[in-house]
Order: sequence, then C-alpha cells, then structure tokens
Amino acid sequence: MTAIGIYGSNGRMGRAIATIAEGEGCTIAGGVDAGGDPLPLAQAADVLVDFSTPAALEPHLAAAVAARTPIVIGTTGLSATHHALIEQAAALIPVLQTGNTSLGVTLLQTLVREAAARLGADWDIEIVEMHHRHKVDAPSGTALLLGEAAAAGRATRLAEVRVDSRAGLVGARTEGTIGFASLRGGSVVGDHSVVFAGEGERVELGHRGEDRSIFARGAVKAALWLVGRAPGRYAMAEVLGL
Amino acid sequence: MTAIGIYGSNGRMGRAIATIAEGEGCTIAGGVDAGGDPLPLAQAADVLVDFSTPAALEPHLAAAVAARTPIVIGTTGLSATHHALIEQAAALIPVLQTGNTSLGVTLLQTLVREAAARLGADWDIEIVEMHHRHKVDAPSGTALLLGEAAAAGRATRLAEVRVDSRAGLVGARTEGTIGFASLRGGSVVGDHSVVFAGEGERVELGHRGEDRSIFARGAVKAALWLVGRAPGRYAMAEVLGL
Amino acid sequence: MTAIGIYGSNGRMGRAIATIAEGEGCTIAGGVDAGGDPLPLAQAADVLVDFSTPAALEPHLAAAVAARTPIVIGTTGLSATHHALIEQAAALIPVLQTGNTSLGVTLLQTLVREAAARLGADWDIEIVEMHHRHKVDAPSGTALLLGEAAAAGRATRLAEVRVDSRAGLVGARTEGTIGFASLRGGSVVGDHSVVFAGEGERVELGHRGEDRSIFARGAVKAALWLVGRAPGRYAMAEVLGL
Amino acid sequence: MTAIGIYGSNGRMGRAIATIAEGEGCTIAGGVDAGGDPLPLAQAADVLVDFSTPAALEPHLAAAVAARTPIVIGTTGLSATHHALIEQAAALIPVLQTGNTSLGVTLLQTLVREAAARLGADWDIEIVEMHHRHKVDAPSGTALLLGEAAAAGRATRLAEVRVDSRAGLVGARTEGTIGFASLRGGSVVGDHSVVFAGEGERVELGHRGEDRSIFARGAVKAALWLVGRAPGRYAMAEVLGL
Repeated sequence: MTAIGIYGSNGRMGRAIATIAEGEGCTIAGGVDAGGDPLPLAQAADVLVDFSTPAALEPHLAAAVAARTPIVIGTTGLSATHHALIEQAAALIPVLQTGNTSLGVTLLQTLVREAAARLGADWDIEIVEMHHRHKVDAPSGTALLLGEAAAAGRATRLAEVRVDSRAGLVGARTEGTIGFASLRGGSVVGDHSVVFAGEGERVELGHRGEDRSIFARGAVKAALWLVGRAPGRYAMAEVLGL
Repeated sequence: MTAIGIYGSNGRMGRAIATIAEGEGCTIAGGVDAGGDPLPLAQAADVLVDFSTPAALEPHLAAAVAARTPIVIGTTGLSATHHALIEQAAALIPVLQTGNTSLGVTLLQTLVREAAARLGADWDIEIVEMHHRHKVDAPSGTALLLGEAAAAGRATRLAEVRVDSRAGLVGARTEGTIGFASLRGGSVVGDHSVVFAGEGERVELGHRGEDRSIFARGAVKAALWLVGRAPGRYAMAEVLGL
Repeated sequence: MTAIGIYGSNGRMGRAIATIAEGEGCTIAGGVDAGGDPLPLAQAADVLVDFSTPAALEPHLAAAVAARTPIVIGTTGLSATHHALIEQAAALIPVLQTGNTSLGVTLLQTLVREAAARLGADWDIEIVEMHHRHKVDAPSGTALLLGEAAAAGRATRLAEVRVDSRAGLVGARTEGTIGFASLRGGSVVGDHSVVFAGEGERVELGHRGEDRSIFARGAVKAALWLVGRAPGRYAMAEVLGL
Repeated sequence: MTAIGIYGSNGRMGRAIATIAEGEGCTIAGGVDAGGDPLPLAQAADVLVDFSTPAALEPHLAAAVAARTPIVIGTTGLSATHHALIEQAAALIPVLQTGNTSLGVTLLQTLVREAAARLGADWDIEIVEMHHRHKVDAPSGTALLLGEAAAAGRATRLAEVRVDSRAGLVGARTEGTIGFASLRGGSVVGDHSVVFAGEGERVELGHRGEDRSIFARGAVKAALWLVGRAPGRYAMAEVLGL
C-alpha cells in the first residue's frame, strides 16, 4: 500500500485526490495546508502530491528533498524561479511537474506534436477550446500546451507563430501560424480540439473533460508511477509510456 | 418551363446557377455582366437572379421594375442606400434579397432565433465558424446573420451584446453576451455552429457547407418560388415556409 | 414558497430533485418511497414529482387526484395502461408526463420537428447518440423521442421509417428513412445529434448532457410551472412556451 | 520531371490523378484501361499508379515487373491471392499498396494505434463514420482500417473484438471491444471519428474528407516518393515518414 501525502489537502483538487487515491487502494499519509509544517508529512509519505499555491512551492520542495520523498507538482502559475527550484530538487529526488494531469490531454499533446511533424506546413493548425462561463483567461493553459506541442512538432516556438484571435478585416491566413479560439459558456469542464486543415481534408484531434475528477485520477496515477524512480525531472507523458 | 435570367452570369455563382437551373428543368433566358444592357434580359426572363456587384444593383433593379420581372438578389456588401432602392422596387415587383441562399443556413437562422427565445438568458450563446485560409474577414457574414437571429430571439440588438474575440485576462463571461470565434484553414467551404450552454447541458445547432453549389441551388429554388408572387419584399425563410 | 412532494425520494433522481428544489427557494413537503402511504404527502404538497416505478404510478395518481394536487411524472417504462390512467387523472388535476425532463432535449425535439417539416424528403435524417458503457439498451429513449419528432415533422410514423443499424452489404440508403446509431463507452452522460444531410450541406442539431442534474432541474422547473394550471395533460414543451 | 503511368486512367480516380499530377509538375506517360496492353505504359513510365479492378491486377503487376517500374496500388477489394502476387512482385520492384491514399487518414491510423497502445483497456474505443447515401456497404473500408490500427495498438486482432452494431437490449458494453457505427446521408465524402472514452474524459481522433481529390493527391505523393526506392513492399505511412 502506497502512502500519499497531499499538500493543499483542503482544496478541491486535494480532496478529490484523497478520494481517488483511496479508491485505488492507497492510504493517505495526511495533508497540509497554508501555514502547516510540510516536513512531517514528507517524512510519513511514500510520495507527495502538491496542488497548492506557487508561494508554497519552495517549502514543499525543501521538505520533499529533506525527506527524500518523490513529489508530483500540479500547481499552476509557476514562474522561471519556481522551475529553477524544481530543477535543483530533481537532482536529489524524483519530481514530476505538469500543467495538466489528465491522461487524455497528456496523450493528446504527443499526438498533436506527431501530427504537426508529419503533415507539411501547408496544413493549417487551429486550436479551439470551450470552458465554463467563470473562466477569466483565454486561451486556456491546456490550449497553450497543445499549441506548444504543435509548434515543437514543426521545430518552431509557439510565441513566433501564435495568433490569438481574429476579428475584422484580418486578411488571408499566414502560412505556418497557429490560431487559437476560445468559447465560454455554461458549466463546460473543458473541451479542446486541434484542427489540421489541408487541401480537401481535415484531421481533428480533440479532448472532452466531463468531470474534474480526471485531474485527480491522473495525479494519483503519476504519484504511483513516481515511487521508486531515480532522482530526476519527469513528465506526465512518461507515465503513459510516451 | 421557367426562364431564368442571370446578372453576373460569368462569375462563379452565375455559372453555378446556370448549371443547377438547367438540372431543375429551367431554361436560361440569358446572362448579363458588367457593362451589358440589363433591360432585354429582364424582358426575356420569367425571373432574374443577381449575384453581381453592389455598383450594378441600381440598373438591375431598374430593368426588373421596367419589365415587371421578379428578382432574387444574392449580391453581398449592400449599403443602406441599396436597401432603400430594394424597398422602392418591392413596391412594384417581388424582390427577395438575402445574405445567404443556402437552405440549411436559412433554416438554421430560424431555429437559432427560436432557441434563443425559449432558453433563458442563463444559457450562454457562442457562435464558432471555420472557413478556408483565403477568407479575409472575420466573423463570417453568415455567423453575423446567425448572431442577429439569436439576438432577435432575445429581443435585443446584436451590436449591443456582441463579443468578437477573447484573448488574455478577459474576466468572467458577461450574461447576455453573444460570443464569436473564427477559425481559418485549408479549403473549408464554411462550417457554423451556434452553442447554447446552460448549467449541465448544451444545445448545439450547426451547418456544414460541403460544396459551394448549395448557394446556387438555394438561389434557383428561391427564383422558382418567387415567380407569380405579389409585389413585395421576401426573405429566404419564406421559401422554406418558415 | 412552493412545497414540493417527491415520490421516489430516496432514488438518485429523488435526492437530486430535493437539492435543486431547495436551491430554487422551494420547500420539500416530504418524500415517499416504496411501501409508504402516498396520500399525506399529496395533501401536504403544492405539487408532486414522481420518479419512482411504473408499479407505483396508480396509487400515486390516486393520491394526487384525491388531494387535487398537480403532478409531474418522469417515471419511464410506462405502458398503454399507465397512459390511460394518466388521461383519467388529467380530467381532474394538472398532469405533466415526459420521457425526458431536460430543457435542452425538450427544445431540441421541437427544433427537430420543425427542421424535418421544412426540409424536403431529399434531406436524409440520421440520429447518433453516445452513452456510458453501462447502458443496456439501444437506441436510447431520448434518441427515439427525437426520431418521433422528426417523423412527426414529416407527417409519418417512426415505426414505418426507422432503421436501427447498418452492417454489411446493406445497399444504398432508402429515401425517407430515419437511421439510428448508438455509441457506448466511458462515463458519457448522454450526447445526441440529429443530422439532416442534403446535397452539398448538412444541418446538425445536437444536445450534450454534462451532468444528470439537468433532469432534476427540468423536473423542478416543470413542477413550478404546473402549480395553478387548469386540469389537463401537459408536456415539457409547454414549460418552455414551445 | 517524373512520368506517371495510370492504369484505370478513364475512371474517376484515374482522371483525378492525371489532373493532380500535372499540377505537381509531373508528365503523364499515358493511361491504359480494361483490355489495353499494360506493358508499353510500364516501359514508358517512371512510376505506375493502379486504380483499376482486382481482375486487372495480375497483368498490371506482370508488366511493372517486366519493365522494372515501381507501382502504387490503390485498387480495393483485393483477395489473399492478390496480396500474394503483390508480395512476389515486391521482391523485384518497389510496390506500395494501400486501402486509402489520403494523407490525413494515413496519419490518423498511426495516431489511433499509438493512442490504443497507451491508453488502458478501460478506455472504450468506438468508431463512427458518415458517407453519402449511395454507399452500399457498412462499416466503410476506412473505418475498418482504423479499427485494425486500434486493435494492433492493443496487440489483438480486430475480428476478435469487433462489434458492428447495437440495437435492442444488447446489455452493458464488453471491455476490450471496438464498436462501429455507420451513418448514411446526403453527399458526404467521408467523415471518420475514433472515440476513446475513459472515466470522465474522451479523446476523439477524426478525419473529414471534403473532396475526393485528396485520394488522387495522396496517390501522386506516394508515386513520387516511390521512384528510386529499393524493391520491397511499402505502406502509405512511410510516405509521411511515420
């Protein structure tokens, strides 16, 4: 039985992770939230999962390193400084950091990169996503991950080819660009579709999130996979063997 | 056998209309293009179809009125002045003017208006369209027609609720707005989808154009329907009995 | 404040209705399950909602009639005998019976009937649905409701034009038929799409259920609408003003 | 300039290949149809493309071998005997045989196999396709190719897990099966979608054929790729570098 320790255990994701982990036969080593001491949890757990806040990442990593406990980091909004801290920790313990723990989205990124690499630049790439009415930013972080995968497949950088919206007399499409479109409405958990449009045909690679539990399910799968690994920085794709 | 006269007969639409009309058992009374005298054609035809240019609309209408021949107008880019001319002509002859002669799009406009009227304002409306890479404007004229239908269903004006794009930290969705998103790529003839997103469910009303012949087909159907009508201004919806 | 009484109150739907009703500012007059006396609840409630079993419908209707309390019936699997009982009750009290209380599906039925009525028989109608892996029957009851709406729009009966599956050398499509296709997998709550395929274009009218709460939400909306109506048999479409 | 020889040159595909090939800067070495002598064409061409009939495959292969000319075979309905002939020819010349020359479908097969290999058996696989009303068989050959790719990804054979239709009380879904659903209507060139449905999420990999020219375009691309290869049997996937 694997003992999972949860940073951010009272948040929506933290609670969902506990539920899923117990369903998968794990024990919960305990949880820590803002203000708690992260070290005892790191010592008691076989693996840690962190869905808290960027501000808490440094003490959580320090506790994980001190206890030599692997850690899955799903916290979003990380800066370059946070990524440098992760690199340092990964020299000593296994660390898996990801912007999206869904298995389906993880697979989709790989498929999008492959498609972009194989289809010529005369296939236009467009990414459309829909989320609930409360989401405040656009495009979604996951849409950007998919755009980065497409850009990587074409050996370019997303920032150089990204087109975030079209309105008015924008002119004909520029070859090589990657377009984004964002819909908002209702209670949509998160739909993403990457369209490759060639002459006379289209390939469409999509993902529909029905339920937020998919993020907790993927985080638990990643945590179980991380136990026993050598120190290093890992990605969700490796959990799927991609 | 109905004799159809075509203004703009050498354009892509004009030629497609001739092909479809002959397939439907009509005769082609003839065609006129830029610089030709529109009157003899108006006198020879049972009904006229105009897919030429805004600049040619005035002489075409004058010829139709002089010959008392019904006319279908599919020319796009009309101004308020053109619409005033159409109103004057419609006092004397049957005139059907439309921004989209596809039967499917015509039906969709009616369904969208009905859906918007019946579902409460807590159902968010989003319109997404995709067209080929050569299209220079966004959103498409048809997407705007669908937006106007949705706004009409809610007894509001599109200009007051229209949101053309989302990029960056745009904040939560404002209730009552109608969002547009435009994709461009490949050789897509024209796909449109109107999404009504409520709490826990979505209604999606869409149209896919596979082939530009649909516009010619609808124009011929409209022309046949217009023969023998009383003077007045008609809409494509009436051709479908909507 | 409207007092709602729930037959089948311990079932999944019964509990969901109680949650939604309280969120809408109603009070719960109470609940009755298998073996309980339905009369006191009928007397205490302003309106009843029944999501129990066909076997319990007769005593529930008798209680509603005795107490002169309107009743919404969402129980599925009703026979002709049950419908006759409903007709009798509807002579004395308002009764709304429906196979699907979702507002979106209710609207979609109306739109599908309208589309089928307006588009000619040369537009082929296909209905595709997807549900979770545990569903045992196909096509879904909702797909059949949509098929009946399409058949009604064409002034025919579904049983005469229904094609439930295609496999092997089935030959070219027969004009006027309505085809069904059923997908099963994962945890899909319920997606339905009605495709009208004409020459060169398609109209697609679809519904996505994200969450089973939509059925409870529609049932509560129907119950509130039914209070104060004259005796008679009502349909979900009327709740939406369709 | 590559000289392309076309077997089946008067068929719809043969004529489309000639048009595309000339657009790509090739010359047409000539064409042969039923009853013609295939050898002179094989001697005149740099590469052959065969979209004729199974009955003509043997003489076409013999001519290609005699002239040592590479050949692309897109003829469908081949038997085991035909495949044995292809193997023999491939010992002496480059042969590329495929059931679908579309670049998009070719890529999709690879992505589907990869997805099936990476996602566990608790992700249900369903394949849905739509074609025009004149198509006589179901599922489509391309849907079966996609099903074979999915089965290969799971290291199983399609024949053992294939479920062609669902109608009636079919019971819960059996884990590990691959379901097919076929829609027919209008003038649809060919749409295919492979749905992977997991707990709480779906991955959808699809292809839309807008225009039959895509098959000719892929065939020409394959022919140009085949020139100068070593003898052997090749697949469309290799043309894309997959």
